[in-house]
Amino acid sequence: MSQTDCPFCEKLRDLSSLQASEVVWRFPYSVAFLGPWQFYRGYCVLAARSHERELFHLPDEVRRAYLDEMCLLAQAIDQAFHPHKLNCESLGNQVPHLHWHLFPRSGDDPDRLSPVWLALAAAESDPELRRRLEGEPIDRPAIATALRQTLTSLKAPRA
Amino acid sequence: MSQTDCPFCEKLRDLSSLQASEVVWRFPYSVAFLGPWQFYRGYCVLAARSHERELFHLPDEVRRAYLDEMCLLAQAIDQAFHPHKLNCESLGNQVPHLHWHLFPRSGDDPDRLSPVWLALAAAESDPELRRRLEGEPIDRPAIATALRQTLTSLKAPRA
Repeated sequence: MSQTDCPFCEKLRDLSSLQASEVVWRFPYSVAFLGPWQFYRGYCVLAARSHERELFHLPDEVRRAYLDEMCLLAQAIDQAFHPHKLNCESLGNQVPHLHWHLFPRSGDDPDRLSPVWLALAAAESDPELRRRLEGEPIDRPAIATALRQTLTSLKAPRA
Repeated sequence: MSQTDCPFCEKLRDLSSLQASEVVWRFPYSVAFLGPWQFYRGYCVLAARSHERELFHLPDEVRRAYLDEMCLLAQAIDQAFHPHKLNCESLGNQVPHLHWHLFPRSGDDPDRLSPVWLALAAAESDPELRRRLEGEPIDRPAIATALRQTLTSLKAPRA
């Protein structure tokens, strides 16, 4: 997958066309998007601004700054929504452009001992579970606002 | 879970009692263990030396050094086994002591587009799949040696 057919590169090229609530924060080396599965309240996807496949393909200083941004976003999700545990995952099996899935896990989630991917796979054939994991009813702008306020209080860098 | 009943703290306290092939590398801020699922050839678990739940609970300098070690181990796995893609995951749902799962994914894996957790969950009720994912027949010391040689060539820091 090259930059021309990469869905992350496409989103990053035209951030202003996205709804305001979908872009949580524009960091210098990455952009945080509100993720689709808001049963995991505060779930974000943090896409690197560079189209690279692996962390060690980034120059050292860029990689460290990108990871600082990831940790700061994780801290903001934690402060805003008080999860039981955070799951930080950089997979890229479908889209090999560096991005982190930051999933806050709730102590009330009966599946809290398992990776989220088992529930998300089950939701593919279960519309009711899918709606539950999407977090309906949900106020996505309010979630994005809470994250932005926390990132502001943490003095998160902006591009 | 406190340090006294944490399985990672227990392993880290007594590394010399483990088989040599199981401890891949002793970094200053973490220790790399060879993981059980060697169908993902080179799979390692990188446990932080400190018993902390989240990355942002570590002091900045310790966190950055730990993440540098994670990236170097990922690079070594990549150089030694040439995976199609690496999956880097810090979950801690069962053991909330910081650790990375570094899963190299093969282009020949029919499930390469999915997180490994789906296959690993299926293996719980399928002994044949379990044996396949454990990577049998397998020479674990040879895998550990290949990783150590690569880490040496990358000048990885040692504790």
